[in-house]
Amino acid sequence: MNLLEEKFSRIGAEYAPGQEGRQNTDEVHLRGEKIHGTPVDFSHGDVDAFEPIPGSLDAFIEGVHLGGKQAYTEYRGSGTIRENAAQKLSDFTGTTIDADRNFIITPGTQGALFLAVGSTVYRGDKVAIVSPDYFANRKLVEFFDGEAVPVQMNYLHTTTCAGLDLSQLEDAFKAGVKLFLFSNPNNPTGVIYSPDEIRDIADLAQKYGATVIVDQLYSRQIFDERTYTHLCAQNIDPENVITIMGPSKTESLSGYRLGTAFGSAQIIDRMEKLQAIVSLRAGGYSQAVLKLWFSEPEGWMAKRIAQHQAIRDDLIKKLSATGYFQLRTTEAGSYLFPRIQELDVSTNQFVKILRLQAAVTVTPGTEFGSQFTDSFRINFSQDHAAAVAAIDRIIKVVEGYRT
Amino acid sequence: MNLLEEKFSRIGAEYAPGQEGRQNTDEVHLRGEKIHGTPVDFSHGDVDAFEPIPGSLDAFIEGVHLGGKQAYTEYRGSGTIRENAAQKLSDFTGTTIDADRNFIITPGTQGALFLAVGSTVYRGDKVAIVSPDYFANRKLVEFFDGEAVPVQMNYLHTTTCAGLDLSQLEDAFKAGVKLFLFSNPNNPTGVIYSPDEIRDIADLAQKYGATVIVDQLYSRQIFDERTYTHLCAQNIDPENVITIMGPSKTESLSGYRLGTAFGSAQIIDRMEKLQAIVSLRAGGYSQAVLKLWFSEPEGWMAKRIAQHQAIRDDLIKKLSATGYFQLRTTEAGSYLFPRIQELDVSTNQFVKILRLQAAVTVTPGTEFGSQFTDSFRINFSQDHAAAVAAIDRIIKVVEGYRT
Repeated sequence: MNLLEEKFSRIGAEYAPGQEGRQNTDEVHLRGEKIHGTPVDFSHGDVDAFEPIPGSLDAFIEGVHLGGKQAYTEYRGSGTIRENAAQKLSDFTGTTIDADRNFIITPGTQGALFLAVGSTVYRGDKVAIVSPDYFANRKLVEFFDGEAVPVQMNYLHTTTCAGLDLSQLEDAFKAGVKLFLFSNPNNPTGVIYSPDEIRDIADLAQKYGATVIVDQLYSRQIFDERTYTHLCAQNIDPENVITIMGPSKTESLSGYRLGTAFGSAQIIDRMEKLQAIVSLRAGGYSQAVLKLWFSEPEGWMAKRIAQHQAIRDDLIKKLSATGYFQLRTTEAGSYLFPRIQELDVSTNQFVKILRLQAAVTVTPGTEFGSQFTDSFRINFSQDHAAAVAAIDRIIKVVEGYRT
Repeated sequence: MNLLEEKFSRIGAEYAPGQEGRQNTDEVHLRGEKIHGTPVDFSHGDVDAFEPIPGSLDAFIEGVHLGGKQAYTEYRGSGTIRENAAQKLSDFTGTTIDADRNFIITPGTQGALFLAVGSTVYRGDKVAIVSPDYFANRKLVEFFDGEAVPVQMNYLHTTTCAGLDLSQLEDAFKAGVKLFLFSNPNNPTGVIYSPDEIRDIADLAQKYGATVIVDQLYSRQIFDERTYTHLCAQNIDPENVITIMGPSKTESLSGYRLGTAFGSAQIIDRMEKLQAIVSLRAGGYSQAVLKLWFSEPEGWMAKRIAQHQAIRDDLIKKLSATGYFQLRTTEAGSYLFPRIQELDVSTNQFVKILRLQAAVTVTPGTEFGSQFTDSFRINFSQDHAAAVAAIDRIIKVVEGYRT
């Protein structure tokens, strides 16, 4: 099983968010005392600080009371729930999504990503992946024996677009890449692709006949009234696009494990076949909760966005005042990706030190691309005061480990 | 993407249980009138007839109220819930299961099977699969580019054991098979492997250094006080065994999507890494429901088993009286796998006819092995009276389509 062992060593989860409790910390040497404060886990959003959509538990209970009909849906999900969600996502994206042909409900957007990549990548296939981007993208390509072709996003050198290197993307297509996989807004940087960038991506994919999978998990949480552009609404063969969205982040429904994918009928068909052997379906009763998505109470979403924007502003002010960090202001979603160059420990060590010395959990940059050895990601969907205090502790730790 | 297309054509889900609504029925020609009656879907158990463990919704609600801690567990599942379940499964199997090293919570046992096969099969690997056995086993081996090596189970020719052809199994190991994957009790026949068979399987696997994945989904629902033997408790390297169990069947918790796998620490580690990219974790709130498993109210399980045994007896009496069917009496679980040889339509046609003409859904035998063209599976975990009436309708339809 040596080849299999190698493969699994490439998809290691030791530094993945939520797994910190399983890390080996024998080699971590702390300088100075512990810095006390409310523990903050910036590796994912805090659903206690930002609670699920009101009524979500009631919707689940209703699902349970529907009984067998709700427990055993089609593998692609309950027909009525698909119809409801497909209509709302058609409105949101400005496209036409046929609930029967173009839509699948999945266990979280992670489930959707896995199924989408498994349905489009054959061993040896070249797949363009953005650097930096969501850590699972690279691992998924590895798992399906594809070859990841990195395309740089120079997010620190611009403020008017994401900074994707479009000529690199075109070179990748020319070199035989048939799939481009990316998140918009970008995870971990929180930047949005500009209308021009999205149009250019669509044009290039169309020109080279490539498929695009776009993860739009955070596309409802847009700050400063910026423009968000849906790739699926551009001039591109709709059979070559899969869009992934879900209610786990802004809407805090992660505990229900719900995601959706929509687009290409052929790819959705494959995704359903794969779902049949992966986990049959998204949890039946949980599917009932999806009805609340895009039907939140009046003003609820606007307030949630404003609260996150306020946390963002406070955190960036503190980080910027030190002069230690390079960062780009989050344009959407809840991520910040500070870069810090003058540490005399590795970022992986720094991340472990932060957790042990200051009760602050962050995700090392290397999860998002091997070259991001000097960055870390925080998800600031947290209790506001606790997040601000945790940033103070991060700064103190940095001061203890600078060169 | 032609190779990928071929691959997906081999894992088709058209005839899979629950997908019947998506079947093409244009070519189905009915003889005679519709036969009316309460629709019965024998493709899976009816959780309205046999309800979930009492208190399961309350346990879920408690999980929701625990908040973020329950929504975001480790990928292998909540530590306290793993400890609780591992202790009870240690008692049940007569082995020692370390909750931290040897145990993972998955989205259903389907999830556990997918992760286990994905963690042990590399492309080109030979995998021994029983004929007949659970349809996903073969599809999983296909998906991971393994080579399925069939081992016959001559279930109709014996009543003292399952009828596994052990010399075929040994030949398979000699020919390089490194993994044996099977369900006990067997799905679709409902027979139990005898103590001797399980010991022989363990001995052979140990002799050839093979890994065994055993799906024990129905191992709590044993009829006629038969003996059930746990492979994991035999004389075999525990690092070479994964056992899969879950509360979706007898306990009717399918809507919560919960399964477990336990055994080899190395394989469980890989399964967790794979789970991290497949769907992160079993639904966080759902995991809280697992606490009720093996802690059902006094007498609840005994009653449930007795009720199923009574349905089994009535169904078998009716089927046997006709002389049309060959079948083996179910020893555990809720499946019957009748064989019927004198139809003048194919089994796939017959299955569609049954649904359209008599509102009875069954699963064609070919899902469980390509040679089972003359068998079909029913899951008799149904309302007792409705199931009996549906068997009468099946018999009437058979009479209309006999040669």
